[in-house]
Amino acid sequence: MMRLGIDLGGTNTVVGLCTLDGVLMDKISAPTKTGDPDGLCAVMHDLCRDLCDKHNIPYSEIEQIGIGLPGTLVKATCTLTFGTNLGMSNVCFAHAFEPEFNCPVNIDNDANCAALGEFYGGAGRGTRNLLMVTLGTGVGGGIVLEGKLYTGREDIAGEIGHMVIVPNGAPCNCGRHGCLETYASATGLIRLAREAMEQCPDTCLHAMVQENGGKLTAKMVCDARDAGDALADRVFNDYCDYLACGLTNLINVFQPDAIVIGGGVAGYGEKLLMPLRERVHAQQFKIAPEGTPIVAATLGNDAGIIGAALL
Amino acid sequence: MMRLGIDLGGTNTVVGLCTLDGVLMDKISAPTKTGDPDGLCAVMHDLCRDLCDKHNIPYSEIEQIGIGLPGTLVKATCTLTFGTNLGMSNVCFAHAFEPEFNCPVNIDNDANCAALGEFYGGAGRGTRNLLMVTLGTGVGGGIVLEGKLYTGREDIAGEIGHMVIVPNGAPCNCGRHGCLETYASATGLIRLAREAMEQCPDTCLHAMVQENGGKLTAKMVCDARDAGDALADRVFNDYCDYLACGLTNLINVFQPDAIVIGGGVAGYGEKLLMPLRERVHAQQFKIAPEGTPIVAATLGNDAGIIGAALL
Repeated sequence: MMRLGIDLGGTNTVVGLCTLDGVLMDKISAPTKTGDPDGLCAVMHDLCRDLCDKHNIPYSEIEQIGIGLPGTLVKATCTLTFGTNLGMSNVCFAHAFEPEFNCPVNIDNDANCAALGEFYGGAGRGTRNLLMVTLGTGVGGGIVLEGKLYTGREDIAGEIGHMVIVPNGAPCNCGRHGCLETYASATGLIRLAREAMEQCPDTCLHAMVQENGGKLTAKMVCDARDAGDALADRVFNDYCDYLACGLTNLINVFQPDAIVIGGGVAGYGEKLLMPLRERVHAQQFKIAPEGTPIVAATLGNDAGIIGAALL
Repeated sequence: MMRLGIDLGGTNTVVGLCTLDGVLMDKISAPTKTGDPDGLCAVMHDLCRDLCDKHNIPYSEIEQIGIGLPGTLVKATCTLTFGTNLGMSNVCFAHAFEPEFNCPVNIDNDANCAALGEFYGGAGRGTRNLLMVTLGTGVGGGIVLEGKLYTGREDIAGEIGHMVIVPNGAPCNCGRHGCLETYASATGLIRLAREAMEQCPDTCLHAMVQENGGKLTAKMVCDARDAGDALADRVFNDYCDYLACGLTNLINVFQPDAIVIGGGVAGYGEKLLMPLRERVHAQQFKIAPEGTPIVAATLGNDAGIIGAALL
C-alpha cells in the first residue's frame, strides 16, 4: 500500500507518492487551476493517476489521499471553506478522486501538513510533541501533540503569529496590534530594517537597496550583517529578541520536545538559530540544564506533501 | 469501584472520595506535615483509610489514588522533585498507600488537577479541549486537549502566566520581564492600582487602603470600582486589556472549546467576564460569529480533589 500527498498551492499543484512511513518516492506537478473548482479537481485527479501509472501502482493500492490547502477548512466534511489564493470557497474534496480511487481523502491546511511532514520524516523525527514555526511573509505554525496534529475548534488552531508580544505595537492584518507576525516574519524583519534605515541614512543597506531598485528583502539584511554592517546587525539582534520572546512564550505553554523553524528566514541557518537558542534557553522554564531543541526544517517544500500523505 | 483524590496543599491535606465519573461524595482533611515526607505520607494514608472506613468501602474497592501537588514532579515515577511550599524534594508516592491500597497512584500538579476537575465535573463539562486559567497570586494554567491533561516535556507545560505580553515590562519572578502574570494576577491588579494611586493621590482607594492598615487587595479595587471610583475603573479596564490580550493569544494558538477562569479575581464574576469576552471576541481568530466561551470555574477548591481522583 502507498499514499498520495497533494500540496495544493496558489501557483502549483504537486502530487507525491509516499510509502506508509512517509518516504517520498516521486512527485509530479502542474499549474493550479485557480478559480475553477472542477478544473482544479480534474488536475489533481489526473496527476494522481499519472503518478500511479508511472510507477505501475494499481489505484487500489492507494490507501489514502491527503491534501494540504491554503485556507480555512472543515476536516470532518473534507471541505475547503475559504481559499483566497485558490479563488474559491466551499469545495468538497471527499469524492474528487472517484471512481478510480476509493480510499479516504483527508485535508488540512498547508502549515499543518508541513509540521506533520517534518514530524514524521524531517527535523522533528523522534519527538512526540512538536511545534513548527514558519518564518515567511507571515509567521505560521503547526502543532503536533502526542504524535497527532492538533487543530482545535473550527480547525483553526496554531495561529502562533497572532500572539501579541508588543501591546499597541505595529498593526497586523488580523486586526490586532503588535502580533509576533509583525515582528518575526520576513516582512517584519524588512519593516524593522526600514525603520532603522530612516534613523540612520548612511549605511551599506541604503546602497544595497538602491542597487536593487529600491527593494529591500530579508536576505539583504542578513547579507549586510554578514558584510559587517552595524545597522543590519542591530536590526537582526532586535529581530532575534522578538522571535525569541515568541518562541519562549510558546515553550513555556507547550514544553514541546523540539521547535522546528522553517520558511525563508530559516535559510539564514545557524546564524539565526544560535542567537535564538541562546536567548530562548536563558529565559525559558526548564528543569534539565539543556533548553528545548530549536532546529531547522530539513524537508523544504516536500514537508507539505509528505505531511498530506500521512494525514 | 471508587477513587480517592488528594489535594496536597502547603497548609491542608484534603482527601476526597469520588465516583468513577468524578462526583465528589465526601472529603476529610488534616494539616499538611510540611518538611516531613514520612509524616506527610502517613497523614495522607490515614485520611484515605478513615474516609473509606467512614463509608464502609473496602480498601480493595479503590481503583486509583491521585494526588495534586504544588511543585515540579515526574509523573512517570510518581515523584515530587521539588515542592517549595511542602518543604521537601524527591519524594516518591508510588508505594505510599500500601499495603492497604494496592491500586495505581498518579500525581500531577495542583493547577492541572483543577483543570481536569473542571473539565469532568465543572464549567468545562462537554468540552474536548479546555484551558483553565487561574487568577490568583500568580496566573496558573491547566491544559486539557482531546480529553486528556497535556503536560509536555518534563511535565511542566501550561505556564501560561509566563508568556511575555509587554516587552521590557514589569519584572517577573521567573526572570523575564512583562509576563502575563505580572499584569493579570491579583498581584498584578494590585500593582497596577498602586501605580495609578501614585499618579492620583486623592481617590476613594486611598481612604480604603488607609482604613485597611495600608494594605491593598484585588477585592478592594473591585469594591472601589463598584462604588463608582473612576481611578479603580480605569485600573480595572487596563487589567482587562492585559488579561484579554493574554487570553486572545492563547485562543489563537489553541482554539479551545472554552476557557474556564478560576482563582480569587474570578470571584468578581460577570463584572470581570463580560468586559473580558467583549475584548477577546473582538480580537480573536474565529469563523463562527460567536467567540470562544469564557466561563467561571464552578467547583472552587473541590476541582483539584476531583481532578486528582480522575488522573
